[in-house]
Amino acid sequence: MATQTNEYPTKAYGATAPDSGLAPMDITRRGLRDDDVLIDISHCGICHSDLHTARNDWGRTTYPVVPGHEIVGTVAAVGDAVSRHKVGDRVAIGCMVDSCKQCAHCEMDLEQYCKQGMVGTYGGRDRHDGSTTHGGYSERIVCRDEFVLKVPDALSSEHAAPLLCAGITTYSPLRQWNVGPGSKVAVAGLGGLGHMGVKFAVAMGAEVTVLSRSESKRQDAMDLGAHDFLITTDREAMKAKTGYFDLVLNTVPVRHDVTPYLHLLRIDGAQVLVGVIDKLPELHSGILLGRKILSGSGIGGIAETQDMLDLCAEKAIVPEIEMIRMEEVNTAYDRMEASDVKYRFVIDMGAFRGA
Amino acid sequence: MATQTNEYPTKAYGATAPDSGLAPMDITRRGLRDDDVLIDISHCGICHSDLHTARNDWGRTTYPVVPGHEIVGTVAAVGDAVSRHKVGDRVAIGCMVDSCKQCAHCEMDLEQYCKQGMVGTYGGRDRHDGSTTHGGYSERIVCRDEFVLKVPDALSSEHAAPLLCAGITTYSPLRQWNVGPGSKVAVAGLGGLGHMGVKFAVAMGAEVTVLSRSESKRQDAMDLGAHDFLITTDREAMKAKTGYFDLVLNTVPVRHDVTPYLHLLRIDGAQVLVGVIDKLPELHSGILLGRKILSGSGIGGIAETQDMLDLCAEKAIVPEIEMIRMEEVNTAYDRMEASDVKYRFVIDMGAFRGA
Ligand SMILES: [Zn+2]
Ligand SMILES: [Zn+2]
Ligand SMILES: [Zn+2]
Ligand SMILES: [Zn+2]
Repeated sequence: MATQTNEYPTKAYGATAPDSGLAPMDITRRGLRDDDVLIDISHCGICHSDLHTARNDWGRTTYPVVPGHEIVGTVAAVGDAVSRHKVGDRVAIGCMVDSCKQCAHCEMDLEQYCKQGMVGTYGGRDRHDGSTTHGGYSERIVCRDEFVLKVPDALSSEHAAPLLCAGITTYSPLRQWNVGPGSKVAVAGLGGLGHMGVKFAVAMGAEVTVLSRSESKRQDAMDLGAHDFLITTDREAMKAKTGYFDLVLNTVPVRHDVTPYLHLLRIDGAQVLVGVIDKLPELHSGILLGRKILSGSGIGGIAETQDMLDLCAEKAIVPEIEMIRMEEVNTAYDRMEASDVKYRFVIDMGAFRGA
Repeated sequence: MATQTNEYPTKAYGATAPDSGLAPMDITRRGLRDDDVLIDISHCGICHSDLHTARNDWGRTTYPVVPGHEIVGTVAAVGDAVSRHKVGDRVAIGCMVDSCKQCAHCEMDLEQYCKQGMVGTYGGRDRHDGSTTHGGYSERIVCRDEFVLKVPDALSSEHAAPLLCAGITTYSPLRQWNVGPGSKVAVAGLGGLGHMGVKFAVAMGAEVTVLSRSESKRQDAMDLGAHDFLITTDREAMKAKTGYFDLVLNTVPVRHDVTPYLHLLRIDGAQVLVGVIDKLPELHSGILLGRKILSGSGIGGIAETQDMLDLCAEKAIVPEIEMIRMEEVNTAYDRMEASDVKYRFVIDMGAFRGA
């Protein structure tokens, strides 16, 4: 595959060590391969994974790391073989920038489960030159055309950004488990993921209940369109909903006991984990023997992500966001950790680029 | 509801304490209610639950206890309102003898999940007089007619007995998860439950693999009709089957890590627990996020149990059994604990009754 020799010097923000915080750095984007798209980034959402990776919470970070996988921008150049995107198009990139596109999973449009491993938008390993990928906290990015999504006209760029991870991560399991009119869905956790889960489930026609440890989130839940609110520490209220829900979408991002949520499920109902990447505390098999399902889901494929973007444009389903400047990212991380954001920070990368 | 005043003195075998072992005892069966059936027991299978209950392994046993919930016999008398069974019919009782028959679960033919609680065949609490139920290690039993199954002519009584628990426990989840021609099914554990799981899955047209820690069971697995055998301690062999199976039917009856079996599942494949009643070791959410399903199943409803018996008669699907006399039950328990039985002990209760 031909590669243009002119690389792109690129301003970015990244971490150099677990405790470094994020600071300006210079990176280089590769010259365009035949199937590459160069994107001037206008917006980038901030995901919990960004924070965990920057701080090496999962022990897998290689430094320096430039986070960001909720990326929206404008096509600035394309490789010789690119026909699906053209200069000036408003486009987006989510959590992955490449996969083998040939394995059984890729052929099922499940590139996120590519048998050779998908290439993460940051901290991934390029399939051709082995270099480490860098994410959206940067002026521009180069990405294989098949992993570049189209942003519909009706979606603003800042609102599109969080859909690329928080959106698809909640949309995909709701589709997978056939949520529709009449479904009884509970959403556990009301952060970036959870608030999109509520919006999607409501849009799909479900009866939606927010599960939270704190009464303080009741009004927020209702404002997002939820029909009911259940405090998980209220034993009586939880008991009253035993066996009630078809689906619990569990967006809680930290280690926790999933048993109370299993009790809320009807027979053959499912709890789907999307937020937690950790060991779960010991679980008694007895609850599962009542034909309760525990499963999980990771983002979504490219085709499904495009479907979601199109649906969001058509039905005006958009995240609640707070815009920040790139220089404010460290403060934003602290606030996100304290759940002090409704519900997703989006970085104005245009301001960072000076565009 | 009218109850006949004449009760039935009944010879039985039971435990009086966790370490008592089983010994002869006298119990009394109630006089027939309008909807009761009196059954002279000819055969009773021995289930792992019998052993665990007799020894109070689950800490819930009330003594004395008379185990046995794989019961076959002949109708000896019926209450005034019974029309579905008549004297002389060959019939069977499984793990439950009553439920409310009015709740949503009962109306779905899922009496085992009755919202008021099903009444266990032994150690249960009678819904009318509150007495403790006693199981099939006895001459005769009295049971509500709707919980009495019909044994088809083509099924011998001794072969029918283990179907009432080991059979339905494995049959029901295979049906629930739509196993059929082309399905790739793995069966973990090759005891009373597992060997029936293999036979049923083979009969349903699946490609069946037995998972075992020990090479010594390979020939046994093949003799039962399995198509392949996988040693779970063989890392390379396990890795080669990553993502291969649609369903893992996990019949292992002791606490164990279910993670290796989750790795064997394809996307959206399910591991269904039917053997273990214990806390599972900590499980990392990461494996579930690959859209793997962990679930479980408990026996089956009455209608489904009858369907299974009819299918077994039609297709000649029968358990492998070893007949014993009632006096040999303590030795049988020890041998069962040592997995020294192929695959189910059945007690000749006719000999015990002197019939
Ligand atoms: Zn993310
Ligand atoms: Zn692939
Ligand atoms: Zn049993
Ligand atoms: Zn009921």
